[in-house]
Amino acid sequence: MDPDLSAVDARLDALDADGYLLDADGTDPNQQYLSGFDAPDPFVTLYAGGTHLLFVRSLEFGRAKRDARADTVERFVDFAYDQRLEEHGRREAAAQVRAAFLRDHDVESVAVPPRFPTGTADALREQGIEVVVDHDDAIEQARAVKTDEEIEHVRAAQRANERAMAAAEDLIRGAGVDDEGRLVHEGEVLTSERVREEIEVTLLRDGCALDETIVACGADAADPHDQGSGPLLAEEPIILDIFPRDKATKYHADMTRTFLVGEPSETIEEWFELTDRARKAAIDAVEPGVTGAEVHDAVCDVYEDAGLPTLRSDGSTETGFIHTTGHGVGLAVHEQPSVSQRGGELEPGHVITIEPGLYDPDVGGVRIEDFLVVTEDGAENLTEYPVELTAE
Amino acid sequence: MDPDLSAVDARLDALDADGYLLDADGTDPNQQYLSGFDAPDPFVTLYAGGTHLLFVRSLEFGRAKRDARADTVERFVDFAYDQRLEEHGRREAAAQVRAAFLRDHDVESVAVPPRFPTGTADALREQGIEVVVDHDDAIEQARAVKTDEEIEHVRAAQRANERAMAAAEDLIRGAGVDDEGRLVHEGEVLTSERVREEIEVTLLRDGCALDETIVACGADAADPHDQGSGPLLAEEPIILDIFPRDKATKYHADMTRTFLVGEPSETIEEWFELTDRARKAAIDAVEPGVTGAEVHDAVCDVYEDAGLPTLRSDGSTETGFIHTTGHGVGLAVHEQPSVSQRGGELEPGHVITIEPGLYDPDVGGVRIEDFLVVTEDGAENLTEYPVELTAE
Repeated sequence: MDPDLSAVDARLDALDADGYLLDADGTDPNQQYLSGFDAPDPFVTLYAGGTHLLFVRSLEFGRAKRDARADTVERFVDFAYDQRLEEHGRREAAAQVRAAFLRDHDVESVAVPPRFPTGTADALREQGIEVVVDHDDAIEQARAVKTDEEIEHVRAAQRANERAMAAAEDLIRGAGVDDEGRLVHEGEVLTSERVREEIEVTLLRDGCALDETIVACGADAADPHDQGSGPLLAEEPIILDIFPRDKATKYHADMTRTFLVGEPSETIEEWFELTDRARKAAIDAVEPGVTGAEVHDAVCDVYEDAGLPTLRSDGSTETGFIHTTGHGVGLAVHEQPSVSQRGGELEPGHVITIEPGLYDPDVGGVRIEDFLVVTEDGAENLTEYPVELTAE
Repeated sequence: MDPDLSAVDARLDALDADGYLLDADGTDPNQQYLSGFDAPDPFVTLYAGGTHLLFVRSLEFGRAKRDARADTVERFVDFAYDQRLEEHGRREAAAQVRAAFLRDHDVESVAVPPRFPTGTADALREQGIEVVVDHDDAIEQARAVKTDEEIEHVRAAQRANERAMAAAEDLIRGAGVDDEGRLVHEGEVLTSERVREEIEVTLLRDGCALDETIVACGADAADPHDQGSGPLLAEEPIILDIFPRDKATKYHADMTRTFLVGEPSETIEEWFELTDRARKAAIDAVEPGVTGAEVHDAVCDVYEDAGLPTLRSDGSTETGFIHTTGHGVGLAVHEQPSVSQRGGELEPGHVITIEPGLYDPDVGGVRIEDFLVVTEDGAENLTEYPVELTAE
């Protein structure tokens, strides 16, 4: 896939910079997008004059020439690194070869993303190269608008995600309950860890990796970023939030469901219904030209009308709706655009989550998350998974 | 575990900085080490006056107060973020609250690691805070010397690693060979992908995660960073390089073995014996006070004496021994100290790999990697796994 870098070209014009420079390893989504190359250690990618140039250590040279989306691949040794090292030491030598590489391509000034390393920036500045921070991160902005091919990648990751969710739901719904109210599977207490393993193994067999999965019950579930641990309990909502990365394409999916075994309390039942209503209201609001802020407002309206606090009504609340409505998903699991109080206009090709939720340490947590692509005239929900608190 | 930060204290004195500042998410090993906190989005940790301070968004506040290695946790809202946002916009507001947080703790100058984000550094400088890059990365240096507890963590990860290697070796050694020379398991051609899945599932069930695993055969194996793909072949060396992370402790292990089904060529047999000899020579050389460069020299000597090129004898060679001898392993899979031409003195508590190897696209690749801890009087090999090219 060749990315559409017109946003980056425009930014270079606006910042009056000769090229766009990255210095990051292959886990960095901007680096993946611009270089098309994966390496465990940081390497340099320069985008200048419409061409992609990679600057790597010898170890990565052959693979970079073969795999990278690069017109040219050059090496430290091509710029007399060893001699410079001998003469000037590691830090100065690294700065000199980077500056020499840039000047060799007529680049005297570079734009860099906000998370570009300060060590490299300061070193280049000492070599007389101008380094301007592109605070709006043109590459991340370019990444936000997905091509049809990228949408197929996230769709495929979401299918795998749904198979993993189904495996986890089967475990939970099929569990018995012991006399302490804990879920039991095949004679053993069912834990967050056991369900997480089921999810992870299912995803692995489907070619997906994931660093974290949330399987949180009771007080754990009241903290949106708590991964959860220990026994799962009947009559308590259990939040499952799964966000795998397809290992081949590197694109992510993201989905959350809340399950409960037994009889929910009135509060949980009400929270679940409200949250599902908030989800639908947000999805209905999504279309090109609408802002992320307006979609977020649709969720806050539902909760506030029901008398529940949100960060919009009280910026320091620790219960109620205490996060944003959603975020972009792609090479990163959290990326642009933001579906929040500060979210800008949605465009066709944006892939976003809609994930309203309610939290209180005394009650637990409820969250429902779907995963959509903004289309020319609205949105397509990429999630094909039922929304049910209890078993039918 | 409370890290020993005396190296950081000394660096702050040397750089005349009031505090050490990080701005990174929970995947950053320095952040893990200093904050003891994990979050998916970047957060700020300040180490000043011997105390740890975290500066987080509201969403992470409760969990940070509970989990982080922090004397104090503060939030953006504590510094009037919303009002500043309204008045000055996102970028200026973020810079102002960070500067206000620092000044509230009497910090006017900060040291930052080389990969600290330039966007944050420049913004703080605009607010009058002095930002000095600590090019020698005192936190990474502190991380390099492991406590007994950390050594137990890497040892535990290595035990899991060996179970995964054994599962993969069983698959490969137990395979048949079809008439095209491909390995066959239970009637299906055995691929890199299938062996990788076996490794990953075994590790997952042992509480370990991994982003990548190398299972590379033939020409793939001739590139040290190629992950490998497709059918595995008899009479070709197959390199398995596994570097999992224990999900609970976040510490890594690292080991490589090379297996061959059938009869090896004379070249491969010679390469394997040389590489094992290089491995032993390097391990014998490891003790406190010896430099990483001397250990690396021990490997280069073995190869060069046999007439094979190394990067020491020819800095631009693409065949032979084309990488360094090893690296530190801990919260990062690649960290200090370096066991290379530029490696400094080894100290007790350093955990390093020793991984000589030979590569040529026309022959394939051979690599053997053990994983050691430097002790008071030598080294302990943390690897308990046989070194055998073919089945006994």
